[in-house]
Amino acid sequence: MSNIPGLNTVGLLGGGVIGGAWAARFVLNGVDVKLYDIDPQATRKMNEIMVNARRAYSKLTLAPLPKEGTITFVNTPEEAVTDVDYVQESAPERLELKQELLARASKAASPTTVFGSSTSGLLPTQIQKDMVNPERFVVVHPFNPVYLMPLAEICGGDLTSEATKLRAKEVVTAVGMKPLMLSKEIDGFIADRLMEALWREALWLVNDGVATAEEIDDAMRFGPGLRWSFMGTFLVYRIAGGEAGMRHFMAQFGPSLKWPWTKLMDVPELDDVLLEKIVSQSDDQAGTATIRELEALRDDCLVSVFQALRGNNYGAGKVLAEYERELFGRGPVPVLDPLAPSVSHEMVIPADWTDYNGHTNDSRYSQLASEASDTFFRAIGFTPEYLATGRTFYTVEGHTRYLDQTHSGDKIKVLTRVASYDEKRIHLWSEVVREDGVVAFTAEHIFLHVDTNTGKSSPMGSEMMTKLKPIGDAHAMLPQPVGIGRRVGEKPAK
Amino acid sequence: MSNIPGLNTVGLLGGGVIGGAWAARFVLNGVDVKLYDIDPQATRKMNEIMVNARRAYSKLTLAPLPKEGTITFVNTPEEAVTDVDYVQESAPERLELKQELLARASKAASPTTVFGSSTSGLLPTQIQKDMVNPERFVVVHPFNPVYLMPLAEICGGDLTSEATKLRAKEVVTAVGMKPLMLSKEIDGFIADRLMEALWREALWLVNDGVATAEEIDDAMRFGPGLRWSFMGTFLVYRIAGGEAGMRHFMAQFGPSLKWPWTKLMDVPELDDVLLEKIVSQSDDQAGTATIRELEALRDDCLVSVFQALRGNNYGAGKVLAEYERELFGRGPVPVLDPLAPSVSHEMVIPADWTDYNGHTNDSRYSQLASEASDTFFRAIGFTPEYLATGRTFYTVEGHTRYLDQTHSGDKIKVLTRVASYDEKRIHLWSEVVREDGVVAFTAEHIFLHVDTNTGKSSPMGSEMMTKLKPIGDAHAMLPQPVGIGRRVGEKPAK
Repeated sequence: MSNIPGLNTVGLLGGGVIGGAWAARFVLNGVDVKLYDIDPQATRKMNEIMVNARRAYSKLTLAPLPKEGTITFVNTPEEAVTDVDYVQESAPERLELKQELLARASKAASPTTVFGSSTSGLLPTQIQKDMVNPERFVVVHPFNPVYLMPLAEICGGDLTSEATKLRAKEVVTAVGMKPLMLSKEIDGFIADRLMEALWREALWLVNDGVATAEEIDDAMRFGPGLRWSFMGTFLVYRIAGGEAGMRHFMAQFGPSLKWPWTKLMDVPELDDVLLEKIVSQSDDQAGTATIRELEALRDDCLVSVFQALRGNNYGAGKVLAEYERELFGRGPVPVLDPLAPSVSHEMVIPADWTDYNGHTNDSRYSQLASEASDTFFRAIGFTPEYLATGRTFYTVEGHTRYLDQTHSGDKIKVLTRVASYDEKRIHLWSEVVREDGVVAFTAEHIFLHVDTNTGKSSPMGSEMMTKLKPIGDAHAMLPQPVGIGRRVGEKPAK
Repeated sequence: MSNIPGLNTVGLLGGGVIGGAWAARFVLNGVDVKLYDIDPQATRKMNEIMVNARRAYSKLTLAPLPKEGTITFVNTPEEAVTDVDYVQESAPERLELKQELLARASKAASPTTVFGSSTSGLLPTQIQKDMVNPERFVVVHPFNPVYLMPLAEICGGDLTSEATKLRAKEVVTAVGMKPLMLSKEIDGFIADRLMEALWREALWLVNDGVATAEEIDDAMRFGPGLRWSFMGTFLVYRIAGGEAGMRHFMAQFGPSLKWPWTKLMDVPELDDVLLEKIVSQSDDQAGTATIRELEALRDDCLVSVFQALRGNNYGAGKVLAEYERELFGRGPVPVLDPLAPSVSHEMVIPADWTDYNGHTNDSRYSQLASEASDTFFRAIGFTPEYLATGRTFYTVEGHTRYLDQTHSGDKIKVLTRVASYDEKRIHLWSEVVREDGVVAFTAEHIFLHVDTNTGKSSPMGSEMMTKLKPIGDAHAMLPQPVGIGRRVGEKPAK
C-alpha cells in the first residue's frame, strides 16, 4: 500500500530507460506496478534500474519511504491497464506505434483511467486520436533519470479534458515531481525545444572544429549550467541587467540577436510588442524581489551547489576543492600560544548567520569549532604532506553544548586549548565567547591518530609530537575551563 | 600581500557588473586592485558588489582566505595599468571603445604586462589590433557573478602569444577559476553561443505565446538545468543512450534534427564524418567510465544538488522539501515499546555508505541517530501540526562516540531509549548495534522544548506529555546502557 489516496497500482506500457525509471519511481513510493514490455531483456534491465534508483533514494532523503511496491511483468497491454489507478506509456518514439498501442490498451481499461504518455516530442492530439475515451489521454513528459528528476511537462491535446490534466498533476506530485502545465501543444514541448536549440549549436561547434564534445560540456558545467540548476535564462539575464532590470538588459543585448553569435539565425523580430511581453513577464516572475535579493539568492544557491558537488569531487565542486587546497597551502601556518588558549577567530557574527528567530544558526557553532580544530591541527604540522604519508586523525568522541545565543553584529572569539594528549590522542576544548564574556557554545573532542593503511591507531610522527608537546604541557597548567569533562545533562556547579 | 607568486596588484579597466565583480574576486584573494571607471557611481556600485561577494565567500569556504586586498580608484587608464602584474578590461561591449581604450592603456603599461578582456563576443584579433605589444592581449571571458562562477574562456587572437595565454590561465587558476583554453576564435566563444541558441528559442516560445518567461525558466530549473550544473549536453545524451552508448543515441535522435523541435532550423548535416567525430569525442570524454558508473555519478550529483538547494528552500530543493513533508505525513506513526528500547532501523549497511577504506562513513552514524530521534519525536506526537502551534525542540547538548566499525553488508539495528525527561526536557540515548552485539556508535542528546515566539524553554503540551510519560517512566526501569552519562575521554569500567 502506497498510502497515497487513489494511487495503489499503475500500469506501465514500455519499460526501457524511461519506462523502467517510471517503474522505479512508483515502487519506491509504495505503488505497485504492472509492466508490459516486449524486450526479452526487460527484467534484467529493470533490475539494474532498481539498483540505481534504490541507491539514489537511500541518499536522497531521511523521510520514511513506504514499503516498496511490487513490479509484475505482464504479457499484454490489456493486462497492464486492467485494475490500475493510472497508466503511463513509454513506448518508442514512433507515432503509429504509440497510436496503435494506446488504441488497443484503451479498449481494455476502465473508461475513466487516465493515460499519460512519456513522449518527448509528439503531439498529444495526434497520439490520442484512435483511443477509446481519448479525453483521458495527456502527455506527461519526464526527464532522465525519471526516478530523480522533478520536471513533468503536462500537455493535453484537442480532446483532453481538464480533469485528466488535473489527475496527471496529482499523480506526479504525489511521487515527488514538479508538474509544469502547458497551455499550448507544440512539438518538443518546452524543455526539449530549449535543449534541442542548444544541441544544434553544439553540433555546429563540433562540425566546424571550434570545440570538442568535452570542451563544450566543460563550457556548460563550469559556466551557465551551474546557474540553470536553480534559475532559468530569463531570471539570470534579469539579474545580469543589474539595477536597471530587464528592459535595460534587452536594450543592451537585443541587438546581438542580429549578430552571428550562433549559426541558428531564424530569430523572432524583437519589436515593441515582444519587448513589452518579455519585460512584463519578467516583472511578474520576479514579483516583489529586489535585484539585491535576487543576487543574494543566486549567490546562495551557487555556493550550495558548489559545496554539494565538492562532496562528489566533480565539476565545479572539484574546482572548489582544488582552490581550497591552494588556500591552505598559501595561508600562514598558525602559531599557538602556550600561555593561553589560542584564538582561531575574532569576528563579528554576520547577518546571514541568523535564523528566522534572529539567533545564530546552531550549525555555525559547529562550523566555528571545526575550523578552530583545523587551525590547531595545521599549527602542529598536520599538512597535506603529512596526510599523504598515510596518517590521519579520526574524531572518536565529541560533546557539544549550546549554552547561550549570539546575534547578528555580536563580537565573538573562538578559544581552543589542549585538554590532554598522549602519543595517539589529542583532546581539544573549544569555546565561543561573546564580548561580554558569556560562553555561548562549547565543544570537546577526542581525535585519534590513525594509520590509514591498517585503519588502526598509531603514534603521531615525532615531527608533530615536537610541536604538540610544549603546547599540550603548558595548556595543562592553565586554569581548567568551566564545563569541561561534564556528563551530558550534568548541572553546572553552583 | 596575496601570497600568490607574481600576482600582488592588478589593473582593472571598467568597474561595472563584470569589472566590479573581477575586483571583488581579486581583493578577496588578497590581490590589490587599481580600478578605472568613468561612472560617477562606481564607488557606490563597487561597495554593493563587495557586500555580496564577502557574504558569498563567508559561506563558500572555511579555508583561510588572505587579508583582503585594497581597491584604489584611479582617474586614467594609464594609472590603472602602471606597476601592476595583470590587467583585465571590462569596458562596454563596443569594439571601437575597447580598441581605443586598450591602445591607449597599452602605451603606458610595461611591455610584458598581460591584458585580458572580458568581452563576451567580440573577436580578439580585432580588439588587439591597435595595441602596443598586441601579443600580450587575450580574451578572458568570465561569467556572472565573476566572484563565484568558475568558468573563464581563454581565447587568443592572431597576434596573441602562447605565453600570454598561459599567463592568463595561471592568473585565473590562482583566484579559484577554471580556465577553458579555446583553440579557435569565434564570435561569442563557446558558452555564450550555447546560451544564445537557447535564448533565441526561448524568445520564440514567448513570441508565439507557447509559454511565459516563468514557465520557460521552470522548464529549465526543474529539468535539464539540474543536470547541466555538472554534466554538459554530450555526456547527458551519452548516458541517455544507455548501454548502447553515443552511437545508439545519435541513431535514435539524429533524425530529430530535421524535425520542427525548434524554430532554429539551420542545422549541420549529420553525415558519417560528423557522426564519427561526435562518437569518438564522446568516447574520449567518457574515458574508461562504464555506463553504470556514469549513471551513478549523475545520480549522486543530482541528489547532492537537490539537497543543496533544499537548504535554500528554492527550486528543486523546495520540491524535495515538500515531498519529504508529504512522506512524513503519509508515513505510519511509529509506536514505542515501553518494555525495551525502540528499534528505529533494522537494516543492512549499503555498499555506498563505505569510505575509501571500506568502513561506514562517520556521517552515516549521525544520520542514523538523527533519524532515530526523529522517529521517537513523531511517536510522541511532534508533528507538523504541533510545530505549527509555535512549539519546537532545540538540541542543547550532545555526546557522540565512535566505538567500532561496520562494513558494507553488516546487519545493524538502531536502538533508542529515554534516558530521562522532565516537563521541558528529553534526554535520549541511541546506539547502533551490529548483529554480533557489538555497539559501533552511541549518541546521547538533550532536547529542550521551546516556545518559538519567545525563544525560551516551555513545558511540552499535555497531549505530548501523555504519550511521553509512560514510555519515559518504563524506560527508566530498564537496565542502564553501557557508556551513558560518561565524560568525554572517560575510560570504560573494567
